[in-house]
Amino acid sequence: MKRERLILVTNDDSYTSKGFAAAIEVARRFGKVIAIAPERPQSGMSQAITLFSPLFLNKIREEEGVQVYSLSGTPVDCVKFALDHFLDPKDIDLTISGVNHGSNSAVNVLYSGTMGAAIESAFYNIPSVGLSLLDHAADADFEAAIEYGTRVVQAVFEDESLPRPLCLNVNIPKLPVEQIRGIRICRQTRGYWREEFFKREDPTGRNYYWMTGAFNNHEPEAEQSDEWALSNGYVSVVPVQTDMTAHEQIECLKGAIK
Amino acid sequence: MKRERLILVTNDDSYTSKGFAAAIEVARRFGKVIAIAPERPQSGMSQAITLFSPLFLNKIREEEGVQVYSLSGTPVDCVKFALDHFLDPKDIDLTISGVNHGSNSAVNVLYSGTMGAAIESAFYNIPSVGLSLLDHAADADFEAAIEYGTRVVQAVFEDESLPRPLCLNVNIPKLPVEQIRGIRICRQTRGYWREEFFKREDPTGRNYYWMTGAFNNHEPEAEQSDEWALSNGYVSVVPVQTDMTAHEQIECLKGAIK
Repeated sequence: MKRERLILVTNDDSYTSKGFAAAIEVARRFGKVIAIAPERPQSGMSQAITLFSPLFLNKIREEEGVQVYSLSGTPVDCVKFALDHFLDPKDIDLTISGVNHGSNSAVNVLYSGTMGAAIESAFYNIPSVGLSLLDHAADADFEAAIEYGTRVVQAVFEDESLPRPLCLNVNIPKLPVEQIRGIRICRQTRGYWREEFFKREDPTGRNYYWMTGAFNNHEPEAEQSDEWALSNGYVSVVPVQTDMTAHEQIECLKGAIK
Repeated sequence: MKRERLILVTNDDSYTSKGFAAAIEVARRFGKVIAIAPERPQSGMSQAITLFSPLFLNKIREEEGVQVYSLSGTPVDCVKFALDHFLDPKDIDLTISGVNHGSNSAVNVLYSGTMGAAIESAFYNIPSVGLSLLDHAADADFEAAIEYGTRVVQAVFEDESLPRPLCLNVNIPKLPVEQIRGIRICRQTRGYWREEFFKREDPTGRNYYWMTGAFNNHEPEAEQSDEWALSNGYVSVVPVQTDMTAHEQIECLKGAIK
């Protein structure tokens, strides 16, 4: 008898977020769920880990096939805690991270706590899917994210020949589900954020700065890019790697740096 | 008349660390220096950014050719603040991040605040060098790091044909400078950390966990890997990329996820 699948769910907007509930809903369609998310919002935490403080775990609830925990750390801490303390990575069939409130397309993959957790899970050779909805609102409508998240997860389970490590960065446009034109496999858009720092005074007269910014798309017309897909009504799926080596530069550097 | 070079220096161990002083010493050999580092240690902060709190800036000191600042944020915040608020990226000839107290070889490149800052700087098309010494001690001996950091920076300035974006992850073994066998251009070692969580009780009887772990090297004999270079007495230099796309998986996924 085939055992029931076991899905790890994590997140960077905290265990209280609507997106976390949406990810659990996707996961629940495929098996039993262990869900562990940060105690507090961790957006922009990238692949940060907690080195200098202790971590507190809380069991939030247990219901039919779903156990939910919070951890006082980062998204990557949650994945490490689940896979090195709670569970055996060999027992986990898939990790879902998200659903993030806001885009993780383009270079955001590197700042994102959601994608940090998905990349971490891929290190354990577990297929990992990061889901993000292009809507920052706390009460955003996750219907399309649940629908397309389910499609992607279904496809991952159906095709056992997909490469490993497998880490997918899935972004869903802010559109009613019936207006979404389908799924496109993309590459990360070239371009970077440029920031602006608002300067203000605190009540004691000390200056502070608040970062804001805008993404500069270097290739708005590139149909293979995730930004193009999203702005044209598609769900974007970018396969993410875990080897940061710029292999094509190695030979050139061997001549230059001795 | 050729203008004097301008070097940005940052760090993840805070502006008070000995490694930050060592990086400034390297940079000072090549031009004027703007140094901006986090107010507090930020090890393991990866490419995290501060979204939900204000940033405070302090001018620490100004001396011949060197200005030193602290910022109450992450290493990436420091780079963004320097390049989007303080300075014009076009005026910066190079960024040095480090010298980190501890290794950033192998997959540590993804957890490292030092390398997070170097990757961020490379986004601005500035050649970026992350320097890390395999010694966590606060009073570590940075002589070899300064010597080899200087050699790498010299090579980057001498060869204008080096590719862009250029981001180098340079690790220096914990050895007297005369015992180091030279520089090797490497790739990121395959392998990941496995963690252990120590469980203790706080004074109120509440359990907490403290993460520790060990790196599992999947290819200890691979002479092209940075771990091999370091354990054989070489300085390792790995070129780091900023595109996280697993390009080779795209065609396969197009067939599987629709």
